[in-house]
Amino acid sequence: MGSEINAKVSLINGMEFSGSSDSGHAVKMDAADEFGGKNIGFRPMELILVGLGGCTGMDVISMLRKMKQDISDFEINLKGKRAEDHPKVYKEIEIEFVVKGRNLSETSVAKAIKLSEEKYCSVGNMLNKTAKITTSYRIVEA
Amino acid sequence: MGSEINAKVSLINGMEFSGSSDSGHAVKMDAADEFGGKNIGFRPMELILVGLGGCTGMDVISMLRKMKQDISDFEINLKGKRAEDHPKVYKEIEIEFVVKGRNLSETSVAKAIKLSEEKYCSVGNMLNKTAKITTSYRIVEA
Repeated sequence: MGSEINAKVSLINGMEFSGSSDSGHAVKMDAADEFGGKNIGFRPMELILVGLGGCTGMDVISMLRKMKQDISDFEINLKGKRAEDHPKVYKEIEIEFVVKGRNLSETSVAKAIKLSEEKYCSVGNMLNKTAKITTSYRIVEA
Repeated sequence: MGSEINAKVSLINGMEFSGSSDSGHAVKMDAADEFGGKNIGFRPMELILVGLGGCTGMDVISMLRKMKQDISDFEINLKGKRAEDHPKVYKEIEIEFVVKGRNLSETSVAKAIKLSEEKYCSVGNMLNKTAKITTSYRIVEA
């Protein structure tokens, strides 16, 4: 077995929870008004999409840097579509990478995204068991 | 198809990313020092565990309240064990619920956890495709 990660989630009040982890950070979660919450923090399913973006984003940016690509800006837009019935898992996830820089190689961008998707991204390779994940990219000359 | 969720993840600097979502919240992510980061935010795989805790935590607390249980404190401890090889998905996840309150019914606690695990928790029902998820609980008389 590989490395171990620990997290703790504590009820604050109502449907508001605080989540923290080994690395010492904290984040608030809360339900929407219609589910008894006050929107003081993320919906848990939003955090999953954010974690997916961070996971594949870290993969892609480190590969592009190794490929000597000169990146000035990098954004990942994610859209998740849930099943209608409980447990309402993600059935489809679209990931759009927006890579901004000088003289970027489209081949490098496409390769880095593909390697993250197929080999490296831990989060994507868990979520793709229930969701069809599609990726796209836009390259913007800085 | 059910509801749609959007998120955006933006590179700040180095391996530091900011993630935000439809509901208007933001969270920092970063890699550890050994992977070129500065630990300014969560590892993405930590966020997944936190999201799982929030997801099942919201399920369980709302069911326990409907069952008229008098809860004074509620915590969820999570431990994830990753595969050794890429993509290093979670292979095992342990969730411990610590429920504190007055005259709590063990039957109600066990039932709420089971319903979240088997029927309601979106995050758990995605992650259980790669990870064996085990749950346990402790009831503490307040």
